[in-house]
Amino acid sequence: MTDYQHILESIRRDVQPLFGKGKVASYIPALKNTDPKKFGIALETLAGQEYSIGDANERFSIQSISKVFTLTMAFAMVGEELWKRVGLEPSGSAFNSLVQLEYEKGKPRNPFINAGALVVTDVLIQHLPDPKADILNFVRKISGISDIEYDLDIARSERETGFTNTALVNFLKSHGNIVSPIEQVLDVYFHQCAIMMSCRELAKAFLYLANHGVIPATGERILTDSQAKRLNAVMMTCGFYDEAGEFAFRVGMPGKSGVGGGIVSVIPALLAIAVWSPELNERGNSVAGVMALELFTTRTGRSIF
Amino acid sequence: MTDYQHILESIRRDVQPLFGKGKVASYIPALKNTDPKKFGIALETLAGQEYSIGDANERFSIQSISKVFTLTMAFAMVGEELWKRVGLEPSGSAFNSLVQLEYEKGKPRNPFINAGALVVTDVLIQHLPDPKADILNFVRKISGISDIEYDLDIARSERETGFTNTALVNFLKSHGNIVSPIEQVLDVYFHQCAIMMSCRELAKAFLYLANHGVIPATGERILTDSQAKRLNAVMMTCGFYDEAGEFAFRVGMPGKSGVGGGIVSVIPALLAIAVWSPELNERGNSVAGVMALELFTTRTGRSIF
Amino acid sequence: MTDYQHILESIRRDVQPLFGKGKVASYIPALKNTDPKKFGIALETLAGQEYSIGDANERFSIQSISKVFTLTMAFAMVGEELWKRVGLEPSGSAFNSLVQLEYEKGKPRNPFINAGALVVTDVLIQHLPDPKADILNFVRKISGISDIEYDLDIARSERETGFTNTALVNFLKSHGNIVSPIEQVLDVYFHQCAIMMSCRELAKAFLYLANHGVIPATGERILTDSQAKRLNAVMMTCGFYDEAGEFAFRVGMPGKSGVGGGIVSVIPALLAIAVWSPELNERGNSVAGVMALELFTTRTGRSIF
Amino acid sequence: MTDYQHILESIRRDVQPLFGKGKVASYIPALKNTDPKKFGIALETLAGQEYSIGDANERFSIQSISKVFTLTMAFAMVGEELWKRVGLEPSGSAFNSLVQLEYEKGKPRNPFINAGALVVTDVLIQHLPDPKADILNFVRKISGISDIEYDLDIARSERETGFTNTALVNFLKSHGNIVSPIEQVLDVYFHQCAIMMSCRELAKAFLYLANHGVIPATGERILTDSQAKRLNAVMMTCGFYDEAGEFAFRVGMPGKSGVGGGIVSVIPALLAIAVWSPELNERGNSVAGVMALELFTTRTGRSIF
Repeated sequence: MTDYQHILESIRRDVQPLFGKGKVASYIPALKNTDPKKFGIALETLAGQEYSIGDANERFSIQSISKVFTLTMAFAMVGEELWKRVGLEPSGSAFNSLVQLEYEKGKPRNPFINAGALVVTDVLIQHLPDPKADILNFVRKISGISDIEYDLDIARSERETGFTNTALVNFLKSHGNIVSPIEQVLDVYFHQCAIMMSCRELAKAFLYLANHGVIPATGERILTDSQAKRLNAVMMTCGFYDEAGEFAFRVGMPGKSGVGGGIVSVIPALLAIAVWSPELNERGNSVAGVMALELFTTRTGRSIF
Repeated sequence: MTDYQHILESIRRDVQPLFGKGKVASYIPALKNTDPKKFGIALETLAGQEYSIGDANERFSIQSISKVFTLTMAFAMVGEELWKRVGLEPSGSAFNSLVQLEYEKGKPRNPFINAGALVVTDVLIQHLPDPKADILNFVRKISGISDIEYDLDIARSERETGFTNTALVNFLKSHGNIVSPIEQVLDVYFHQCAIMMSCRELAKAFLYLANHGVIPATGERILTDSQAKRLNAVMMTCGFYDEAGEFAFRVGMPGKSGVGGGIVSVIPALLAIAVWSPELNERGNSVAGVMALELFTTRTGRSIF
Repeated sequence: MTDYQHILESIRRDVQPLFGKGKVASYIPALKNTDPKKFGIALETLAGQEYSIGDANERFSIQSISKVFTLTMAFAMVGEELWKRVGLEPSGSAFNSLVQLEYEKGKPRNPFINAGALVVTDVLIQHLPDPKADILNFVRKISGISDIEYDLDIARSERETGFTNTALVNFLKSHGNIVSPIEQVLDVYFHQCAIMMSCRELAKAFLYLANHGVIPATGERILTDSQAKRLNAVMMTCGFYDEAGEFAFRVGMPGKSGVGGGIVSVIPALLAIAVWSPELNERGNSVAGVMALELFTTRTGRSIF
Repeated sequence: MTDYQHILESIRRDVQPLFGKGKVASYIPALKNTDPKKFGIALETLAGQEYSIGDANERFSIQSISKVFTLTMAFAMVGEELWKRVGLEPSGSAFNSLVQLEYEKGKPRNPFINAGALVVTDVLIQHLPDPKADILNFVRKISGISDIEYDLDIARSERETGFTNTALVNFLKSHGNIVSPIEQVLDVYFHQCAIMMSCRELAKAFLYLANHGVIPATGERILTDSQAKRLNAVMMTCGFYDEAGEFAFRVGMPGKSGVGGGIVSVIPALLAIAVWSPELNERGNSVAGVMALELFTTRTGRSIF
């Protein structure tokens, strides 16, 4: 049997030389002030085992990891219709690229670039009575943690400096791919990015994706088998901005990263694992986080490939 | 136990309505004259079972599927050094795009776009005494089929009309990313594309990728565990031109397609499957082939996700 | 001596077959409702002669022609410093392209694409006590027409539907190339586009560009000799969106067009000519307007080449 | 009356500080070995006056300046039909860009980027019995200099290292925009680039463009009035790679540069001027050459604007 705890400890030790090699996200004060030395990993297996190490219980800003939650909600609600408004292909360029958007006439290339996530948020606003509350409740349900909250300071800071996202949503609107008022889309979007969760909570929250769409703790089905498979595929090909290929190559698990320094990955039918380390590489992914997951698949011999 | 033969038969039945919806590749006579109604599937499990249906024993031009073989050879020979000359990210655009190449100063985005495959071929020429013979011998070895051959007419036709590939290799040379003479690179490249194999032979040949780098029939190691994992990851994110995301989404297996109408995919630790149907969609992938593999993962419940 | 009046009449006759070949701008109601059959030309020589034909005295929305006025004001105020924030090269793509802007890190390629004009407007806001009033007064001064006004309905309509320009200004701000508040930049910009002028008034207003920077009627210097030469050069290479090359080729005069259907051109040391015809080609330039100017240079034998 | 000789002398003095600020083209030995301190200007007026200074009588490799000659020949032969195969718009990017070409499906954006010039050369090959001899004879005719020759060493060197141009012509052929054999197009093209002329000879050769299409010395008409106007317009908007806008802005004359360090410009109805200084800026234009022409228009007060 795999000695996960031992492996997590060896990983913590071996990523130490990477501290100082990346940069904490600095575009808003709340992220800028994060301690760059924070490091945590949490692992949850479908068999019910839990392992963790370091700062695994400390909450941080999940940022783009939230795109998995909103995509799940939208996909469950509107099904394959969703792909008429957002594509499924890797972007081949940076996560906030206007270029790709313009060439493709306002249809974002995939739901994990910012433009795509804004369209997904717009879909939620169309279908939900109280989008901000409903998103929060969804995340509480899948994780089983009832006090998960938005960090309202972060949401406000994002709004005040969010010129690129404001540009994107206006451009999408000019192409008819945003239905709701721009201010509302941005408000919901910046809140979802400001959800605070720990590695433990994230690993628990992602278990439905390892479990073919069903929350293991409650048996509630969130996505069909096929939809869960498909969502994992989207994470595999598009989950790491323009580093998706390298992440698949080095790590070999579907997952999603955020500029808060978090990454969550799953191995279907087996486990979910979340890591947090705030220093980012040039492409916006956690330096030590990516390495930790690479070491994890190498040392356990587990990956999807 | 999964009744694979029964499932293959149901697939053949259900893809019938797709015939006539695509177009046979027509840029050289040898491909143009292929019977569009050809259809075959072959499945090989690591447990040694073999299943097939339709035209599974008829050889066709494997075209870009050969890029997996040459990449394997080059990766085994030069290791991670390879990625200094060719990238690992999905291209986000068509398979022969000069645009991507120019923006990235002559470093092809991945080894499965034509530019990347030309660089891989150049690596082989640098390291092999008789590249054309050596490639053929490699394919014979991994498949266990000793009479696999080049179709010399196809190789010659490709050369006569290969203006885009000639443009690519000259552009790569202008950036210093081709070492050998241009004519030699093109000669080897057009030969590798002209290898003739059947679905049966292709499924056998890919088993080492399902078997962590070892040929099951002989026990010979071709790639390390880690390299085999990595090669599967590259197929997952880059194996289907600019349709990689959709293939991952619909099918959920790493694989590689060719404009001859072939597709080969693997499920690590389980099986390899090859399908052939010459009619292509607009992105150069077999229409019925992609659908057949989607039905396969849906009906067997097997995929990597 | 050139019989300008006779030539103008022949032009009016010969452009008749073009009516119906273009489309009136329809993105805001005020433009959409313009009578597509409107057609006027006004010609003013430095020698003081005036010629006109058709609807030359009817005011219309000058739209992007206003960019010449604001550029003149900004260039006169900050001189060559201006080109640190906006480039001088033809755009090679559509007038509202986000692509070019992204590749060039927020420095618009020239002052006549929308992004560039927004930066110029931002410069005016930084330097003028009451930008909207000051712009209007400048246009009144150079034309000698004291009752030129904004059409406030058009300005408001533009604001309500101006998602692309809102996207541009947010994107510029994200790159630090907008100093003033976004709402103020858009407010001034949409007002300048909504200036109402007739062909007669436009031809008079442009005479300083034919006269080496000096208003002929008053002798007031607006630009230095060198600046006037340079502004004409910018109109020549960038004045017609992505049709600048063809306009230079066919017409051979520096000028500027607007989606209201107006075009104004000058021949240095000789004359200014304005034409109005609301139907636009696919690139946003007046169909009959471009032809009228081509016929003018052909029949008079006057051009800068 | 303008004292041209005095002005040329002042220019020579004032460009001295620029020596050492650029780099001599180094991609072939023959260019690389050029003395970077060479500097010459020659001026020819339609009134028959000749002025020169420095190395104005020393021949150098005219390189892309030859594109004006071949374009003139093709335009005279096939007329406006030419623009079906090559466009008229500024490229907005570097002179050998494959990107633009791909987006525009093999129709080069203008005749002065390399791709466009290759198409023009292909047109000549289609229409001329002995293209290399005919091009040389044309240049001898318009300049009145009977011993102008190709430098065969340069032509051969260009061929041996011309991977980018080989890429371009293959790409054009793949889009059906090259009719003749690739080797022949490249052979003629590399010869035309290798024509050797002095500033004096170039200024003489360009006089027909200042003279509405007629060679002043012989009265022979080369282009119609309209065609000469149009060719000047193309030089104005496209003659300086991606620096056309800045050249128009600073200098205000239509012209053409080459990587040999030459630039030739005309003021219609007045003069032709050629300058040579081998050190180039990053965009491939002569550093001291551009400055010399800027000083010329500033100090004479003559430009087209």
